[in-house]
Amino acid sequence: MSSFTLADWLLQRLDIGAGGPVYRQLYQLISRAILDGHLEAGTRLPSSRILAGDLAIARNTVIQVYEQLVIEGYANAASGRGTYVEDLSPDRIEGSSDKRRGDGQASAPCPRSGLSPRGQDLIDHVGFSNRQMGAFMPGIPDVAEFPFKAWLRIQNKQWRHGAAQLMSYAPAGGYEPLRHAVSEYLGSVRSVNSTARQVVITTGIHQAVDVATRLLCQIGDVVWIEEPSYWGVRNLVLSSGLKAVPISVDQEGMCPTAQELASPPKLIVVTPSHQYPLGMVMSLARRRMLLEYARQNGCWIIEDDYDSEFRFGRRPLPSLQGLDDAGLVFYAGSFSKTLFPGLRVGFLVVPDDLAMAFAGAVAELYREGQLITQSVLAEFLREGHLTSHIRRVRNLYAERRLGLIAAITRRYGDRLDIVGEHAGLHLVLALPDRVDDRRVTREAIEQGVVVRPLSNYYMKPGGEKKGLLMGYAAVPMPEIDPAFDVLAGVIDTQLDGWHPQGVPLQNS
Amino acid sequence: MSSFTLADWLLQRLDIGAGGPVYRQLYQLISRAILDGHLEAGTRLPSSRILAGDLAIARNTVIQVYEQLVIEGYANAASGRGTYVEDLSPDRIEGSSDKRRGDGQASAPCPRSGLSPRGQDLIDHVGFSNRQMGAFMPGIPDVAEFPFKAWLRIQNKQWRHGAAQLMSYAPAGGYEPLRHAVSEYLGSVRSVNSTARQVVITTGIHQAVDVATRLLCQIGDVVWIEEPSYWGVRNLVLSSGLKAVPISVDQEGMCPTAQELASPPKLIVVTPSHQYPLGMVMSLARRRMLLEYARQNGCWIIEDDYDSEFRFGRRPLPSLQGLDDAGLVFYAGSFSKTLFPGLRVGFLVVPDDLAMAFAGAVAELYREGQLITQSVLAEFLREGHLTSHIRRVRNLYAERRLGLIAAITRRYGDRLDIVGEHAGLHLVLALPDRVDDRRVTREAIEQGVVVRPLSNYYMKPGGEKKGLLMGYAAVPMPEIDPAFDVLAGVIDTQLDGWHPQGVPLQNS
Repeated sequence: MSSFTLADWLLQRLDIGAGGPVYRQLYQLISRAILDGHLEAGTRLPSSRILAGDLAIARNTVIQVYEQLVIEGYANAASGRGTYVEDLSPDRIEGSSDKRRGDGQASAPCPRSGLSPRGQDLIDHVGFSNRQMGAFMPGIPDVAEFPFKAWLRIQNKQWRHGAAQLMSYAPAGGYEPLRHAVSEYLGSVRSVNSTARQVVITTGIHQAVDVATRLLCQIGDVVWIEEPSYWGVRNLVLSSGLKAVPISVDQEGMCPTAQELASPPKLIVVTPSHQYPLGMVMSLARRRMLLEYARQNGCWIIEDDYDSEFRFGRRPLPSLQGLDDAGLVFYAGSFSKTLFPGLRVGFLVVPDDLAMAFAGAVAELYREGQLITQSVLAEFLREGHLTSHIRRVRNLYAERRLGLIAAITRRYGDRLDIVGEHAGLHLVLALPDRVDDRRVTREAIEQGVVVRPLSNYYMKPGGEKKGLLMGYAAVPMPEIDPAFDVLAGVIDTQLDGWHPQGVPLQNS
Repeated sequence: MSSFTLADWLLQRLDIGAGGPVYRQLYQLISRAILDGHLEAGTRLPSSRILAGDLAIARNTVIQVYEQLVIEGYANAASGRGTYVEDLSPDRIEGSSDKRRGDGQASAPCPRSGLSPRGQDLIDHVGFSNRQMGAFMPGIPDVAEFPFKAWLRIQNKQWRHGAAQLMSYAPAGGYEPLRHAVSEYLGSVRSVNSTARQVVITTGIHQAVDVATRLLCQIGDVVWIEEPSYWGVRNLVLSSGLKAVPISVDQEGMCPTAQELASPPKLIVVTPSHQYPLGMVMSLARRRMLLEYARQNGCWIIEDDYDSEFRFGRRPLPSLQGLDDAGLVFYAGSFSKTLFPGLRVGFLVVPDDLAMAFAGAVAELYREGQLITQSVLAEFLREGHLTSHIRRVRNLYAERRLGLIAAITRRYGDRLDIVGEHAGLHLVLALPDRVDDRRVTREAIEQGVVVRPLSNYYMKPGGEKKGLLMGYAAVPMPEIDPAFDVLAGVIDTQLDGWHPQGVPLQNS
């Protein structure tokens, strides 16, 4: 722009009448021209009178833009005899190799790096999927059954009365009446011993594990997780600079070997009431062994009781927390499975002497809010809607569970095992080791049926079992057979050399 | 309990009619008696017929309780000739020193530890306070001014139509229409260059910094933070196993020394548009220096633009992100200051090539939901309520700001400096170095006036300036003078040997 006439250049670009306020257009064009080096440092800008005349706009507009440019450092008017373009080349970087440029052109290529190794590792192991609905997405309750009417009534009441008191950050531990309601609820249905002050409201198991590792573990400490287990917690632990050690499970739950027991971890994360994802219940003997081991070795335990409300055919065992008299167990749960996942309200029951620290740490680390939602939930619990809702959907899920089992059995008889069907919102359809369950999953999703590959839940390479996690809770009865038929078609193509003898479910 | 008769023992404890279902009472009493060793391993339980007779309850109840006890491992009925108490001493812990006990008594004291050193350090530095309201709580907008009517109308609409589609976990990046609305909004008011896919919905600056450090930094990497700066981010960074290095600010913002520049950090967290808490605006020259330094040294930058919407007397500078053509700047903000803090919706604008990774990592690490809230907010933005709300409260806050400045000036003239009063929701009242601002804060809070001590925002011991952060946005005009009068009374007791010459504000 050697023969640069600012007015001409601006006239080509200003769109008076259509391009937004003239003030803003003019400011943006001139500041851009300075940043890009089209207007060189030291250039004197035309007087406001002349530029306004050339552009046929109000002189005041130009004056305001020049003032703004001066305030922001694009120009200076120090001499009082006009407005001059500032030298915008970056401040000299002292102590650094001097690559200062005066020409407004790009400097040497930037050594911009990508993700850090641990960041890349996290991304390589992401288990999250954007598909969150449809047959047979695991871990999802039937939100269509949610008691909308009661919830909306309470929600509108809370918003109309006193919402302004509930719009700031949450106090340490969360909304007091909700802590009371949760403590009472857990005592009655899960034998959890707690006072309201031990209940810390969280957004779910991820936050519970995160705050516990930050408060209880040093970087590099060992955390035992179950093998297989929920990938979300595993990835969170690994991403936090901790060592996750997978401990195999047998029919009684987490089952450490003698060698593993010889190196005690700092923290143990377990799902005693319903192993995730395989569904076995930790035996009482194993529970007491784990508690005793933790006592002797100074380990902490997080009991993830993620869907203990849904159990078919037998009462749940009391919580591990209820058996703990040494203050070692943190009991974590949420309303994701009983109400709806997107609610993001969970709880961590903390040993009494650590309750204040955990409440404070949650407030400090995550700066939570959502008090209106917490107040709605507290009232919802107080009015008994949770209990009646669970009672109602438990029957519904039991029926759908039987429907899915019937579909599987009709097709495969006893040739494929069904695992963990006594509780929760999903079962596992076991597949022979030679089958690539990830491939089955991909192909099923392409055909509109969502399952998850069991092998994704294993951490140790080579030791994974094959299978499919199948959620049934949110699949209405009439959709079960057709969806399973589609899935079975995919499975059959992978059972090479093996042809199903069962009767196709959809063969009209 | 050597001459233990189970029926007598139970009769003393059963509360038929008042203590809840008999089934549950009986189950709890017997299981507790087994756990506590009152019923020894191998003891044969009375037959269901006899016990039911002794207790005068239905025999079926006893049968059900026995079955439950067997299922849960408290008892066995293997021989078919009665029900026997199981040996509940913990499983032998292989590989560990054998402290197995058979007497049901407590074993050697447990080496239960407390918080980890980093956990204790976090708790020792918690800046969070449960007081979130009242004059002069900093950083809080006036939620009473929130446009409840518009929000509730949209909220009820979203709940009544299609809420079931919005009740599961959030997709990676958040609710798509909200990402679009935020991208558009930031482009128009903050010169942020982004597409919707670059906008990742977060719960606020804490989550934004957390995900960025997990994806961009290794444990032990150095993060530059401003000195002084927001304690929440500092504590989060330290708790994550990173090294936080405080970099002093001057009148142009973050100002690293030559020595500091010689050791480049991995990540730089800055508040260019309104330094928190001191309020200066980072100059254009400093911005370009920082960008150039980051380019040359492969640093990442998080721009925390936390309350840039509230600026009095001059237009805000464009965002740092808008000046960045190397893809180094992450732009973070939230609706905490413009709508209400408890909303917990924020955003992180991510360089395009990293957008997918960040969206996936947020979903993986935090498993967020709140899609209904996000959909309400998207509609609220689309209908223009945010812009008109900001316009309205900006005038209100400007008036209150002047009210507070007038109160300070009337009392102290130019003997105490006011810092950072041109923007945001708070100002800093500077105090002489000899004054203990933490003590002033404590005493003021005891008298019902909330302020925050400036020294808490410094990390380097000994280098802290003294002062009080005072929020004015949420303080109605008539409350400013009386509250300031109370505060001034406290301040005056600390200005030892110095007596105010100003006229007391409340001297009737």
